Amino acid sequence: MQDQTTPPLPQDHNKPPRKSAYIGRAVTRLEDRPLVSGTGRFVGDMDMPHQLWARVVRSAHATGRITGIDISEALEMPGVVAVWTSKDLGDLPDIPFRATRIEGLGPYTQPCLAKGRVRYVGEPVAIVFAEDPYLAEDAAETVFADIDEDVDPILDARAEPGEFAPGISTAPLTLTKGYGDTEAAFAEAAHVVELDLAIGRHSGIPMETRGALAAWDKGRERLDLWGATKRPHWNRDRLAEMFGLSPSQVALHEPHVGGGFGIRGELYPEDILVCLAAMRLERPVKWIEDRREHMMAANQSREQQHLIRAAVDAEGRLLAIDETLHHDQGAYVRTHGARVADMSIGLLLGPYRVPAYAARAHYRLTAKTPAATYRAPSRFESTFVRERLIDAIAARTGIDALELRRRNFIASDEMPFDRQMTALESDVILDSGDYVGLLGKAEAFCGLDALRTEAAGRRARGECVGVGLAYFVEKSGLGPSELVRLTVQPDGSIEIVTGAASLGQGMETAVAQIAADTLGADYRACRVIHGDTDRIAHGWGAHASRVTVMTGEATRRAAETVREKAREMAAALLDCAPEGIEIDGGVATCRTSGASLTLAEIAAALDPVSPRRGDREPGLAAEAWYHNKHMNYPYGAHIALVVVDAETGRTKLDRYWISYDVGRAVNPAMIEGQIVGGLAQGLGGALLEEFRFDDQGQPLSVTFADYLMPTSAEMPDCQVQILQDAPSPLNPLGVKGSGEAGVTGSGAAIASAIDDALQRPGLVTRLPVTPQYLKARIAEYDAARAEGSE
Amino acid sequence: MQDQTTPPLPQDHNKPPRKSAYIGRAVTRLEDRPLVSGTGRFVGDMDMPHQLWARVVRSAHATGRITGIDISEALEMPGVVAVWTSKDLGDLPDIPFRATRIEGLGPYTQPCLAKGRVRYVGEPVAIVFAEDPYLAEDAAETVFADIDEDVDPILDARAEPGEFAPGISTAPLTLTKGYGDTEAAFAEAAHVVELDLAIGRHSGIPMETRGALAAWDKGRERLDLWGATKRPHWNRDRLAEMFGLSPSQVALHEPHVGGGFGIRGELYPEDILVCLAAMRLERPVKWIEDRREHMMAANQSREQQHLIRAAVDAEGRLLAIDETLHHDQGAYVRTHGARVADMSIGLLLGPYRVPAYAARAHYRLTAKTPAATYRAPSRFESTFVRERLIDAIAARTGIDALELRRRNFIASDEMPFDRQMTALESDVILDSGDYVGLLGKAEAFCGLDALRTEAAGRRARGECVGVGLAYFVEKSGLGPSELVRLTVQPDGSIEIVTGAASLGQGMETAVAQIAADTLGADYRACRVIHGDTDRIAHGWGAHASRVTVMTGEATRRAAETVREKAREMAAALLDCAPEGIEIDGGVATCRTSGASLTLAEIAAALDPVSPRRGDREPGLAAEAWYHNKHMNYPYGAHIALVVVDAETGRTKLDRYWISYDVGRAVNPAMIEGQIVGGLAQGLGGALLEEFRFDDQGQPLSVTFADYLMPTSAEMPDCQVQILQDAPSPLNPLGVKGSGEAGVTGSGAAIASAIDDALQRPGLVTRLPVTPQYLKARIAEYDAARAEGSE
Repeated sequence: MQDQTTPPLPQDHNKPPRKSAYIGRAVTRLEDRPLVSGTGRFVGDMDMPHQLWARVVRSAHATGRITGIDISEALEMPGVVAVWTSKDLGDLPDIPFRATRIEGLGPYTQPCLAKGRVRYVGEPVAIVFAEDPYLAEDAAETVFADIDEDVDPILDARAEPGEFAPGISTAPLTLTKGYGDTEAAFAEAAHVVELDLAIGRHSGIPMETRGALAAWDKGRERLDLWGATKRPHWNRDRLAEMFGLSPSQVALHEPHVGGGFGIRGELYPEDILVCLAAMRLERPVKWIEDRREHMMAANQSREQQHLIRAAVDAEGRLLAIDETLHHDQGAYVRTHGARVADMSIGLLLGPYRVPAYAARAHYRLTAKTPAATYRAPSRFESTFVRERLIDAIAARTGIDALELRRRNFIASDEMPFDRQMTALESDVILDSGDYVGLLGKAEAFCGLDALRTEAAGRRARGECVGVGLAYFVEKSGLGPSELVRLTVQPDGSIEIVTGAASLGQGMETAVAQIAADTLGADYRACRVIHGDTDRIAHGWGAHASRVTVMTGEATRRAAETVREKAREMAAALLDCAPEGIEIDGGVATCRTSGASLTLAEIAAALDPVSPRRGDREPGLAAEAWYHNKHMNYPYGAHIALVVVDAETGRTKLDRYWISYDVGRAVNPAMIEGQIVGGLAQGLGGALLEEFRFDDQGQPLSVTFADYLMPTSAEMPDCQVQILQDAPSPLNPLGVKGSGEAGVTGSGAAIASAIDDALQRPGLVTRLPVTPQYLKARIAEYDAARAEGSE
Repeated sequence: MQDQTTPPLPQDHNKPPRKSAYIGRAVTRLEDRPLVSGTGRFVGDMDMPHQLWARVVRSAHATGRITGIDISEALEMPGVVAVWTSKDLGDLPDIPFRATRIEGLGPYTQPCLAKGRVRYVGEPVAIVFAEDPYLAEDAAETVFADIDEDVDPILDARAEPGEFAPGISTAPLTLTKGYGDTEAAFAEAAHVVELDLAIGRHSGIPMETRGALAAWDKGRERLDLWGATKRPHWNRDRLAEMFGLSPSQVALHEPHVGGGFGIRGELYPEDILVCLAAMRLERPVKWIEDRREHMMAANQSREQQHLIRAAVDAEGRLLAIDETLHHDQGAYVRTHGARVADMSIGLLLGPYRVPAYAARAHYRLTAKTPAATYRAPSRFESTFVRERLIDAIAARTGIDALELRRRNFIASDEMPFDRQMTALESDVILDSGDYVGLLGKAEAFCGLDALRTEAAGRRARGECVGVGLAYFVEKSGLGPSELVRLTVQPDGSIEIVTGAASLGQGMETAVAQIAADTLGADYRACRVIHGDTDRIAHGWGAHASRVTVMTGEATRRAAETVREKAREMAAALLDCAPEGIEIDGGVATCRTSGASLTLAEIAAALDPVSPRRGDREPGLAAEAWYHNKHMNYPYGAHIALVVVDAETGRTKLDRYWISYDVGRAVNPAMIEGQIVGGLAQGLGGALLEEFRFDDQGQPLSVTFADYLMPTSAEMPDCQVQILQDAPSPLNPLGVKGSGEAGVTGSGAAIASAIDDALQRPGLVTRLPVTPQYLKARIAEYDAARAEGSE
């Protein structure tokens, strides 16, 4: 952790330093005790008396008409309580859209159990409910779905649009974005550089697979669900709608979560089915995904093909970019609508000034698992594409790649910079940034010149060593709103209730730091309650690197209101002017008299029955909203030193550096943890992980023998430089998010370093750079170079 | 149900009647469906995986020193996980006081397990935790507490004050109340009438015995308790204090409750012990009381002896009352402090003008189960005492008993009438009442003259038939505060969250009626959430006939705020003036244009992300407090027609009438239900129920063979007249409580009727009037009359 890069909080030297000054400090995480002591309660740890277990019967075919499903044997097995197919679901709606509900996607939603046809291997076709998980699994294996494979599965997003299923086109829509006159720009360009790039299909593989436990209280007509809690309130509202209940009759509760990464906690068929079963069968119903299921059924991500062209002037300045994306959505559109495609072209341009832009995102169905968001969705992909393009322009123009970037960076005095486009239904306005400055700091941080010298030296000695850099702009703090209720308890502890969720990212600690600093209290006195729809009216959950920004600011506002109420009450009790009251370390002190009261004492004076309360609203508590229409945009650079084994094609990360401007670092150690953890996933996507399918759409990567996850052996030493040069003007603390920065630049930086290691500019055009791919690609590249075409 | 006595709501004849006009109507109860369909979930229905069962080992001795407790055999039994005695509890505090925390009671609190001595039969001395309830019970039976019965148990509250246990006096305190010069009044009185009266020990016997289920989430450091929910927030706060937790770490949840009656839901030793065990043993712990335990361990009530004297002038006008109460508290002071004794003398005077008053309440320990409140606490007792006194004055002065009452009633133009005394820490100020008016209506309602004629005729034919009347003043609407959050859900349903509790009394319906009328909605659209400390910050629970007044008024305020917000939003959406918007039946209509919106549509417009919301606070929701320092005082009369079997001494209620002014009847059918149900308990206390003890303090009434509960065979036809002549000026709806009125006057009216049936004025001086008592008392009375002394 780079403490020297975290400037101390500004201090008034006439005053003693505040005891409660936590923002910016690497304080210990509040959430770790249960996690490291084995007392976390994950949904798999939860059971209810008389619960049933669900097991999903999944399609073994990638496409085809269901001619019959034989459930008779299963139904007769002892311990089996029910077996459902689609016809048992009545008019249960399909999985609803949550994000980017673009018109035209309606016909592409997924039913909870396949209706009439199957569209991908792993699609739920039936579900078994039995007394224990073993009986359920045994019974599920006897359910036979008769599938007529009447057409060939469509597996390539670039295939000519056709019929995916009767009446269903493979091409639900094409999104377009852009501005300026690209045609004119290309016409006058000194150079036109074009790349055809691809990113493989991979996704989040949390240590904990998905799971759900639902219970129906028939007497109270109330449904409780544990699991599915990335967006607890949204999921609650949709479940209520699907079942014709009031939201007041449904509650979602967040257990401990063993990794989210964007894929966990969405509303999947299984979540809906266990709820329906709990209500119909009048018993609690539990479902825990196994690893193979996870790799066929949970959202997959990333798979895209990009044809990108840049018009560049003689000095290497970008004149225009033209981008054609083919986005491989898989077989259905689930909760995310067109979100990833929308962001892919909306956020592609990163830190660069691009006078004209034209982009088309062809959103295509394929006979694979449906796709959605995975940590740094679209930015991992588009940073790879854009930074490959910049490297290619550098190679073409002969301009040093860093110098080329500097020439094209949006300047800090151009901020806020309006992209004249939208992404995620909000205007893309880069809020703040010193892109040139960060690049310089990043160069210094890793010692780039020395690094290049080292790489050259090692290459000279026969090693394939290379350095690669990628620059990226992240987005964070997605609104629209967040609500927090902060209450000083009678014992002086501080309860903070938010509708956001915790996926292990440290939000309890960050929120506590912000609350404690604002209030003047010990952050360890804070207890952050999250992910429980019973506890607060609204919440937008945890995704899109939004919690520190949104919940953080709502917390700051609530704490500010509570602090002012505490000061006013303390002033009345201590016979002091409110402005003379200072609160620090949980104690309010009158600067004049030195008399003091603890927050607990002030809370007691505000008890509903306290005679000292007067006409004040009872309770030392406040609710606060934060509404925010605009994302903010942190940014950074990844620098990779890689070693390629030319014989095997294996790439190893030797060392790694990430520089990241987060606006304001609430907890540098947690940010570093986020970033290093993100890199582990980024390198997986850059080098190892891929969901592959055969030509019949059969998934080939459903075990860890075939789907290669990075281990600690693959992780390089990773140094993180946290910068705070461009606080966000959009919130008073200036914070931006940091949940995804470790992923975003990794594919691009590693690709660039491999090019450098092998001294073949533009070599890598596809992720992941597996040994097989790399060896084939080198051969192809060298053949083309021999022909003069590469 | 006497619909003719429920005047219709005032209506503006220029407008069509509102669809949503529920207050005053006998609408169907919202809470009945689970209760009548067998889907209620009582604590006994709840289980958690891996739960332990607790069984309490209780003292078999009424008093004595504990010389040892042998738990060795129990500890070795299979399935037994732990056995605790007092020394295992460390510094666990005693049961805290909740109500009437008068100084001086501190040393009389009860430890959760007996320390050093036992003080009553049934006192917890040890607790066993085992894998199932049978193992726990078997093991508990092997636990042997060696008790040295070193002193005789003190069993009579009138015994000379002495040592109850070493260093502990039997006489913790004497409360006094009064005003005026009683001595002078007695000196100048035309008549002095003195009675020595007693009320037996009985209590609430809910169909569902007590129970508790506690779970500790070690990872989250959070304690959940189901049960003990009469005052959920108070219980939560005390449990948190006892265990050194923050209230934020403890939650109480209210299951369905099979009858409360004031005794259920207090913090008893068992509730505390299951929580402690859940935390220490790290497993859920359940305890369900058996009936025998309930009759030894749950709060008992009522047992008092009164020596009361009245000074009366020649016209029968009261000049003064002097009252000496001996209150039998049992062996410890539990949650209620001195509450019943305080109310007994503070509220004794009922509807009468009494120029001077002097009362002493001697609060005495006895070697019996601790006492506290049972439905109509102190009013059942003091109404019996006061109305016996009035009857006796009538007999002495020869003035008709009704005329005598009329002469002494406080007149309606004297209201509000300040008693110059306090009870329950609040000034006793009778808020409104037309006592004379109600008496006339009651006479007409039962046809009193005809009834007397009938009784006389039947007596002339040899039956012992008599008519008795008792007049009473109740108290209700105890503050201090209540908080309600009302939210119109996106589907138009209305969620109302309160910290009050539901014990089956119909609060969900009453609250829904008030909300629906205020808001202009269908009361069936309301969902009332109660008794769950997670759902709202504060709440004072359900007791003291307070919910309709306190939660009702907080609900009305919240609904009013929501209605105004809905009107303003609707006005903006419909381009109409807010004052032109009328809401009825869940629809807001612009009177000018006729355009309309449903509450659901208005709520949608106020969604956090709705663009139509503008700068309005999100949500069609509001929280509202109601603070109230003063109780209000409903009043009424009981009239009993009884038949006594002179041979067996058995008294049977032939017919019964109750007239009751409730200020404003929210739901006449529910009020009638409350009143008729109350009478069943009142007649039990008047004729049947009594906890008796032998001279060693052994309880003789621990089964239904010995503790006689009324059945439907004992219940007379009971006619209820609900009056609304004296709305409370203390709340805008004018409501008063009705939970206890069926009990209050019953002992007094039945006693009076028995006197009349047997033509022996002043015969009954003790409740219950069991056959044995009555025969003995007749013999005593007749002997005394023969001697000229009675």
